[in-house]
Amino acid sequence: MLIEQDSKVDPSKWRIALHVAELKASIIREILKISSQPGVISFAGGLPNQSLFPMDDLKWAMETAVEKYDSTCVQYALSRGIIPLRELLAERATNDDGVESSVDNILMVSGAQQGIEIVARAFIDPGDYILTEYPTYVGALQAFNYYQAQYCCAEMDHDGILIEKAREQIEKHKPKLIYTVSNFQNPTGISMGVERRHQLVELAQQYNIPIIDDNPYGDIRFRGEQVPSLKSIGGDIVVALQTFSKILAPGLRLGWMNGPASIMHHFEKVKQCSDLHTSTIAQYMIYEYLMAGKMEPQIKRISEFYKNKCDLMLQSLEKEFPAGATWTKPDGGLFLWVELPENMSAKELLNKAIERKVAYVYGEPFFPDGGGDNTLRLNFCTPSDEEIREGIKRLGQLIHEEM
Amino acid sequence: MLIEQDSKVDPSKWRIALHVAELKASIIREILKISSQPGVISFAGGLPNQSLFPMDDLKWAMETAVEKYDSTCVQYALSRGIIPLRELLAERATNDDGVESSVDNILMVSGAQQGIEIVARAFIDPGDYILTEYPTYVGALQAFNYYQAQYCCAEMDHDGILIEKAREQIEKHKPKLIYTVSNFQNPTGISMGVERRHQLVELAQQYNIPIIDDNPYGDIRFRGEQVPSLKSIGGDIVVALQTFSKILAPGLRLGWMNGPASIMHHFEKVKQCSDLHTSTIAQYMIYEYLMAGKMEPQIKRISEFYKNKCDLMLQSLEKEFPAGATWTKPDGGLFLWVELPENMSAKELLNKAIERKVAYVYGEPFFPDGGGDNTLRLNFCTPSDEEIREGIKRLGQLIHEEM
Repeated sequence: MLIEQDSKVDPSKWRIALHVAELKASIIREILKISSQPGVISFAGGLPNQSLFPMDDLKWAMETAVEKYDSTCVQYALSRGIIPLRELLAERATNDDGVESSVDNILMVSGAQQGIEIVARAFIDPGDYILTEYPTYVGALQAFNYYQAQYCCAEMDHDGILIEKAREQIEKHKPKLIYTVSNFQNPTGISMGVERRHQLVELAQQYNIPIIDDNPYGDIRFRGEQVPSLKSIGGDIVVALQTFSKILAPGLRLGWMNGPASIMHHFEKVKQCSDLHTSTIAQYMIYEYLMAGKMEPQIKRISEFYKNKCDLMLQSLEKEFPAGATWTKPDGGLFLWVELPENMSAKELLNKAIERKVAYVYGEPFFPDGGGDNTLRLNFCTPSDEEIREGIKRLGQLIHEEM
Repeated sequence: MLIEQDSKVDPSKWRIALHVAELKASIIREILKISSQPGVISFAGGLPNQSLFPMDDLKWAMETAVEKYDSTCVQYALSRGIIPLRELLAERATNDDGVESSVDNILMVSGAQQGIEIVARAFIDPGDYILTEYPTYVGALQAFNYYQAQYCCAEMDHDGILIEKAREQIEKHKPKLIYTVSNFQNPTGISMGVERRHQLVELAQQYNIPIIDDNPYGDIRFRGEQVPSLKSIGGDIVVALQTFSKILAPGLRLGWMNGPASIMHHFEKVKQCSDLHTSTIAQYMIYEYLMAGKMEPQIKRISEFYKNKCDLMLQSLEKEFPAGATWTKPDGGLFLWVELPENMSAKELLNKAIERKVAYVYGEPFFPDGGGDNTLRLNFCTPSDEEIREGIKRLGQLIHEEM
C-alpha cells in the first residue's frame, strides 16, 4: 500500500496553542546575530568570559566521577537531584549564607532559567500578575510570558527596588510572585542594599507573596561588603535560584533552587514531567569539583578578572561619553547600564553603532511594557581590553554626534 | 531593622496553580521505592541495564571534546543544539532511515521526555484531546496531564494500534495529536507492523493530525526485520522523538526531535524559555562518540544482551505461569506485558508479591482511564539470570494460588 506524499500535510496549519504561537523569539538573540559579524566589537552578549572556564579541572572532575561512581554517574537519578550534592549545597547554604537548609530544600535544575520556568509553571495561571524590577531580566519575562502573566513593576535606584513603588503595585494588582535579581542585576548591574532587602522581605511577608530571588551573579562580587541574601533574611518567603553557569561554565546546564520543604514537592512534580531530572554526570562532576575545594579559587579568579574589565570600561566611559549620558557603577556581575539623554533612542542608535562596528543591547526588551527607550546594556566581561577602549570610544563619538 | 521570623509565612497557603496542585506524583516512582527494598527481585524498573554503559568510551568522548573544542564545549550554545551534531543526526536520518532531513529539522532536547513536554506545550490547550494507544507510556500522560489534556484511546493487537478504533476516536473527539510509541512500546513491548504504520499515517493525513512518534527503543531490535519508521512513511505529518538514554546512557539527558522545519521555530521558542538549551558538553561528547563509529557496536552489544534476557524470561514464564495468564513476545526493547486471568487484580497481587520479595509495575497507571486491572509490566533487562528464573517462579506460584 502506497501513501502519496501529497500536499494535504501542511504543518503551518497545525493548531499550535495560541499563547505559544504568539510568543516572540528573543530580540536579544537577533541582536547577537548581528553583533557576531566579523570585526564588530560586541558588548551585546550575555555570556561569561570563556577563557576563565577551568577546562583541566572539569576534565579532572569528569574522570573522577567516572572512577568513583562508575556507571551510576550516567544512570537515571532522582528528580530532585543526587543526594550528596543536595546535602553539600544545603550545608553550604546553612554555614556560608545563614540559610538553614536540608536536602529537602534543594532541587537541582538545568540552569537557573529552568528554575524560573518551574516557579512560573507552579504558580502562574493566565492573567496573574508578577511584580518585577523595572527593568528586569528578559529571559524571565520570556518564561513568564508563556504562562500569560501580566506585570506590575517598581523602579529602582542605586540601592535596588523602590519599596513604596513596590507596595503601591502590590496593593493595586495583588501579584502572585515577586521576581527579583537582587545581586548585580541583569541588565543594570544594581545590587539591592541591606536595608532594602529587609524592607522587601517585610512587604512580602505582610502580603504573603513569595519572593523569587534569581541569583546567578551574587558570587561575582569584586567590590564592597558581602550583603546577606534575601533568603537568609526572609527564610521561607523566599525561593532562591542559583547556578554554576556564571562562576563555572554555563554549558553544563546546572543550577539549583532552595525553597520551603512544603512547596518542593510541587516543584519536583513539574521537574519530573519536564525532563525527569537534570544530567547525572554534571551533578557528580560538580560534587567532586566542590568537594576538592576548587570553587573558591575559581570564584576569586573570575571576580578579579571581571573587576579589571569593569574598571577599564568605567574609565573609558568617563573619558569618552558626553555629559548627559549616565551609567551604573556595579560592584559585581557582568553588566553595566547606560542612560542616554532622554530624547535619544538607543534602539535607533544601534544601526549606526553597527555601521561603526560596535554593538550593545538596547534597553527596551528588559522593560515589560517596552519602555526605557534611552537605555542600553553593556557586557564588560567578554571583550578584550583593547576592544573596551576602542568600542567605548566609537560609541562615545557617536553619541556626541547625535546630541 | 529586624524582621521577626514569624508564623505569617505559610508556604502551604501559597497559591499554587490549580492544575499543578492537582498533579499526582508518579505512582511508578512509589512502586520503585518499595521494590528497591533489600532482597526484593525487581522487574519494576524502567531503567536500562547499567552494566552496559560504555564508561571508558564516554570518558574518552569527554576528553576528546575538551581537547578539540576547549572552552566552547561548556559555553552557552544555540537553543536548537550545536550544528555539527544536528547535521550528523540529519544525515543519518536521511541515509539510514529514509527520512529526508536537514539541520533545520533537528532540535536537541534533554531526553525524549523533554521532547514530549515541548510538543505538549506547543500544542495542547486545556481540554484538547490526544489519541493514544491503550495502554500507553505513563511519563507522556504525566506531561500531557499538566496541560489538562483529555484522552481518547485505541486498543492494540500484536501488530499495534487498531486503525478502526483509532478512526472512531478521531471522528468522535477530533484530537489535536496522535501519540504513539511505535517500537517495542513501553509498557507492552508491542511493535507496530508495516501495514499498520501506513494506515496510521493515512489516517493522520486525512484529518491533518500530527503523529508524535516517541521512539526510545527502536534501535534495540533483537529479532525480526527492521521496519520503516513512521516518519519515513509519513514525512511532515510525523514528529519523531529519539534519545540516547536507552542505547547509551540516560544520565547524559540527551535526545532529539525531528520535525517539519516550518514548525521547529515554535518548538525552539518553547525550548528557549524552558532551559535555554541542552548541555553543550553532552552534545559534543555524543558527536565525537558517533563520529568515531562507536554507536553501532554498542547497539549490537545491548541488543544481544537484552535478547538473552528476554528469551530467558519468556522461557521462565512458559514454565512457571499457569494457563489463563498470557504475555507479549517482544522483538526488542526492555519490557514485556502480562495479562492475568480477568478477575485477578495485579494491583492487589503486588502486596503479596512484595511479601515474597518480587516486584513489578501493575498496569493501571498506563491506562488514561485507570483500566487494565489484570495487567502488569515486567522489565527483563535489569535483573540477573538467576533473578529472572527465581522471580518468575515466585510470581507463577503466587498466581497459581490466587486462581
